[in-house]
Amino acid sequence: MQAIAQYQQIIQDYFTQISLVKQPKNLYEPIQYILSLGGKRMRPVLTLMAADVFNADCKKALPAAIAVEMFHNFSLVHDDIMDDAPLRRGNETVHEKWDVNTGILSGDAMLILAYQYFEEYEPDVFRDLAKLFSKTALEVCEGQQWDVDFEERSNVTIPEYLKMIEYKTAVLVGAAMKMGGIVARTTKQNCDLIYDFGLNLGLAFQLQDDYLDAFGNPETFGKQVGGDIIENKKTYLYLKALQQCNPYQKERLLQWFAMQPEDTTDKIIDVKELFVATKADTATRDAIKDYTEKAFDILNKLEIDEDKKELLRNFGEFLMGRNV
Amino acid sequence: MQAIAQYQQIIQDYFTQISLVKQPKNLYEPIQYILSLGGKRMRPVLTLMAADVFNADCKKALPAAIAVEMFHNFSLVHDDIMDDAPLRRGNETVHEKWDVNTGILSGDAMLILAYQYFEEYEPDVFRDLAKLFSKTALEVCEGQQWDVDFEERSNVTIPEYLKMIEYKTAVLVGAAMKMGGIVARTTKQNCDLIYDFGLNLGLAFQLQDDYLDAFGNPETFGKQVGGDIIENKKTYLYLKALQQCNPYQKERLLQWFAMQPEDTTDKIIDVKELFVATKADTATRDAIKDYTEKAFDILNKLEIDEDKKELLRNFGEFLMGRNV
Repeated sequence: MQAIAQYQQIIQDYFTQISLVKQPKNLYEPIQYILSLGGKRMRPVLTLMAADVFNADCKKALPAAIAVEMFHNFSLVHDDIMDDAPLRRGNETVHEKWDVNTGILSGDAMLILAYQYFEEYEPDVFRDLAKLFSKTALEVCEGQQWDVDFEERSNVTIPEYLKMIEYKTAVLVGAAMKMGGIVARTTKQNCDLIYDFGLNLGLAFQLQDDYLDAFGNPETFGKQVGGDIIENKKTYLYLKALQQCNPYQKERLLQWFAMQPEDTTDKIIDVKELFVATKADTATRDAIKDYTEKAFDILNKLEIDEDKKELLRNFGEFLMGRNV
Repeated sequence: MQAIAQYQQIIQDYFTQISLVKQPKNLYEPIQYILSLGGKRMRPVLTLMAADVFNADCKKALPAAIAVEMFHNFSLVHDDIMDDAPLRRGNETVHEKWDVNTGILSGDAMLILAYQYFEEYEPDVFRDLAKLFSKTALEVCEGQQWDVDFEERSNVTIPEYLKMIEYKTAVLVGAAMKMGGIVARTTKQNCDLIYDFGLNLGLAFQLQDDYLDAFGNPETFGKQVGGDIIENKKTYLYLKALQQCNPYQKERLLQWFAMQPEDTTDKIIDVKELFVATKADTATRDAIKDYTEKAFDILNKLEIDEDKKELLRNFGEFLMGRNV
């Protein structure tokens, strides 16, 4: 999609042109480092796109977009500490390259820096952005805590899981788009609709991520296929399989998810077989389809030009159409 | 001082009346816990006092005061992780009572919650408060980073040290008071003056803390006397002694500060002797006096009633007059 590449370029240019490194450098170098690792910049792209959709100059939404990207990277730095992750985007994580204390403090600074980008706007827009941001950021923390809690629990329900991914992932997608609407000073109704569009697309995307983790093409899927199965993660696929299995299937599934075998080949094959046999795979595909359709239905209610709806629809199809 | 006790009571009542615990409880219980440990609540008290001084109802400043206390406690939770501290106000630190990950995430949530308290105010006040808060919070992070950096450096200068304590401690005192001024909608000049009053008093207070750590009365000083000497901390006393010593004294001082002896009695006695012999003790007392006087001079420039100046002067004298 041409449009996305253009938005990405605007974000990239921003990060290339400015230097985030000032004194004390041990605080600011890790921030520059994590932001320079790139990624798809999907969230800030959505902020720019939303501003465009509501007929504002997308450049006007750049500070809000950068705030969203700054926050997202803050959460990556702190989550990587909590997960003890050695790698991020193929490079050393901040706490690996420096140390845990640096990761904590530089992360804190990024959260504060995110708020400072909103200072570029007039008082009423500033307030609306900062308020939405605080609400969203707190929900992301809550989602992360649910995710941590779920590791220890054996009775996680599907509604609980959906709430967790909504908070941990989808609310930031919705908020990123709504921020574009706020900057463009569109109606409250449009702001709420674009938020819901982003939220549902975010949910669809996260469920698709769960699905592709098991059933994606190893050659094009960015991560190790079967990674969630190896780590005994209670994804939508797993919870749905538990719900729809017979007693014999349940025993096998629970057995596999109580193990950490050295050679994971058999585990991955058998668990995937169970996902198919219990129809958890089709149930997941249905859920992805439902959330995607819900997002597209919301589009129709937006009071914007038809070509702008087309832009958002194309983006949604691009995002969900990845055949990996 | 009667007035302080009243302000403290208002803060205390707030924390007793509301419950911060909601779901997920593993995120919010640690927040409730750290805030319930109390402390002197000096920073929020200053916000209430400043609102009073500028003729506003001090209750109007309560949300801003709570934001300041929330931020202060956020920084304690994250600093305690970085310092690997087991105790805070005589109780287990959050990362000891729960774990490091809980300390990181609950701390993050507290930083966000602090911003949310400003939402109680009108857009222009909200913006002024949040802007001051972001600037201050970032400086506190920078101060913490300088403090960490200084541990590894042997060439820390006195101006660098003063900058570090200014950022790590004094700016929040200044900001806490300025927030009271912002809420009271006093003039920009008054806001800047009360900030400077708080900043200088904060510097005086921190230098006095350094001084009392070595020369305080063990029976009334809250912490272990000689704690900084045991930990080889490069305080104002130490840096001043290094600056004013003869070669023989320098050798002794550097030797002691390269050691971590099991029995610390001799070290504390000898280092204190060196602080006296090099006149670092009187130099520190002079610096405390200078910053205190600077704060009191600023008071005279404030355009407020004489009895309000008296209130601030009494508070300053109360704060600096502790004979511990």
